[in-house]
Amino acid sequence: MHVTILGGAGFLGRKLANRIVADGKVAGRAVTGMTLLDLAPATAPPAPFPVTVMQAGLDDYEKLRRAMPDGTGVVFHLAAVVSAQAEADFHLGLRVNVEGTRNVLAAAASLPAPPRLVFTSSVATYSGGQQALISDATRQVPANSYGAQKIIGELLVHDYARKGFVDGISLRLPTIVVRPGRPNKAASSFASSILREPFVGEDALLPVPESFALFIASPRSAVAWLLHAAGLASDAVGLDRSINPPGISVSVAQMLAALAAAGGDRARVKPVDDPDIMKVVGPWPARFDTARARALGFAEQPSLDSIVAAFLEDDLAETKALRVS
Amino acid sequence: MHVTILGGAGFLGRKLANRIVADGKVAGRAVTGMTLLDLAPATAPPAPFPVTVMQAGLDDYEKLRRAMPDGTGVVFHLAAVVSAQAEADFHLGLRVNVEGTRNVLAAAASLPAPPRLVFTSSVATYSGGQQALISDATRQVPANSYGAQKIIGELLVHDYARKGFVDGISLRLPTIVVRPGRPNKAASSFASSILREPFVGEDALLPVPESFALFIASPRSAVAWLLHAAGLASDAVGLDRSINPPGISVSVAQMLAALAAAGGDRARVKPVDDPDIMKVVGPWPARFDTARARALGFAEQPSLDSIVAAFLEDDLAETKALRVS
Repeated sequence: MHVTILGGAGFLGRKLANRIVADGKVAGRAVTGMTLLDLAPATAPPAPFPVTVMQAGLDDYEKLRRAMPDGTGVVFHLAAVVSAQAEADFHLGLRVNVEGTRNVLAAAASLPAPPRLVFTSSVATYSGGQQALISDATRQVPANSYGAQKIIGELLVHDYARKGFVDGISLRLPTIVVRPGRPNKAASSFASSILREPFVGEDALLPVPESFALFIASPRSAVAWLLHAAGLASDAVGLDRSINPPGISVSVAQMLAALAAAGGDRARVKPVDDPDIMKVVGPWPARFDTARARALGFAEQPSLDSIVAAFLEDDLAETKALRVS
Repeated sequence: MHVTILGGAGFLGRKLANRIVADGKVAGRAVTGMTLLDLAPATAPPAPFPVTVMQAGLDDYEKLRRAMPDGTGVVFHLAAVVSAQAEADFHLGLRVNVEGTRNVLAAAASLPAPPRLVFTSSVATYSGGQQALISDATRQVPANSYGAQKIIGELLVHDYARKGFVDGISLRLPTIVVRPGRPNKAASSFASSILREPFVGEDALLPVPESFALFIASPRSAVAWLLHAAGLASDAVGLDRSINPPGISVSVAQMLAALAAAGGDRARVKPVDDPDIMKVVGPWPARFDTARARALGFAEQPSLDSIVAAFLEDDLAETKALRVS
């Protein structure tokens, strides 16, 4: 089976690709080839099967089609314009997150057999703020363009799946912490910065109060969930194709305590006013009842301390190397 | 103020145009010009202000832009590929209902001042079936492509409104009964047929059991709601731009009783098996708690008997004339 990762140069795409190479299979089926497509140049990991790297945007239907050769069984669609960027450039967000996702679905639907497609939606699709408790039945009323565009993506995945064109599943990922590398244009970038920058001897900006809570998950959990979604039986998922995986709810104060407990310097975290960031992340809810995902076998996110430990083990060395270069 | 009706040749667009001519104003402001755009040729009603008729699809951005001259204060977006047709032709539905609505919003956003845009969404965006009770907070999990496409339209309207580009409001219209004219490609077409065909001496096909209930509203109510939405204060609407107006829940048995009470021949209603129709309408819920719309001043739909009486008064003569021609 061929596997395709759209957004294969991103931190999650790279981790997913490495994990697939290590496992040698996805959804219980042996992998015989993999394509990594991204706007940025991806790096092919050494693998016992051919890995093709393609540099293209989601507006390039022909390249998307070539990124999914006949025999493609699973497509991971992780490519997106992230939250603060989609808020700053409305039309870019629509083009990539909405039209691009339509191109992805059209390309996947043109395969001889409908592949499983795993689409990453987001907690940013919800509003309601710190007081809200989100269930699987909660209506998504987005307070940012990225969220609105991700719901549209979910609906396209949902209807392509209902029609039998593409066997799609959407995972509404929590804020992923700790992202390796540098701060990015996600409005939630600070959540990783405060647990990452102090370990490389740099300052992190904190645009929210310490009482502010977030629903988070580690890159390890995100990768495990993507692979679990790839193997879910369609019948078990049914009409509703969107799933809230079981992250954990933590406050910034708890994150700073975990930073200190792991030997990080809290003094490196500098409070800052950033109304643009607060406007995007302020309405995001932090508490979720993820009954459906647990019933579908998604593993629960372990403790915050384990999230920090995973970063130090998996990503600190590479993150440090990036700062030197 | 200029007013534009997209879908101006449809039965609702025509009734709305006539009502606007009779009122001379929309949202409390005097109307100085009106454009009716439709794929079908619209008819300009005699009016004390210029009425422009344009024949174009929603894929024609330039014509959409010309249909909204500077000074356009209100745009009614009623144009759509209806439910059974969108289910039969998936890509046509996406092109018109999704891409077309994006073109409408882009054209409206290019005006010097953001107009109020009233978009017609639908009860078809919900599933849950006969047992469901839909509140303003219920998540929309569509079981048909038309529904999925209409939710996408709602989300586009929502985000354009949040950004301040177009002051949009979406009304999730109940099944409109009694539609004048002939049966159409809406999956709910039967709901009007059973209250219309017997009055013109023709048979009506009934693809659902008599116990089947629907959430319905009259054309009169729909027009009144569209005009009420045109005048709503943006602050009163807030972030959530979608509203379920207060229709009524009726069973087919009650509709047949109302038919007989108004002198219609029940024997003209012929039960028929139509799994394609049942597949689309079966999951539609019939019961709604419309607290938000009532708080926002939307008038409640009067009784079923009044719906039949309104048809006989407003539309029977024209419907009969169509059958003769």
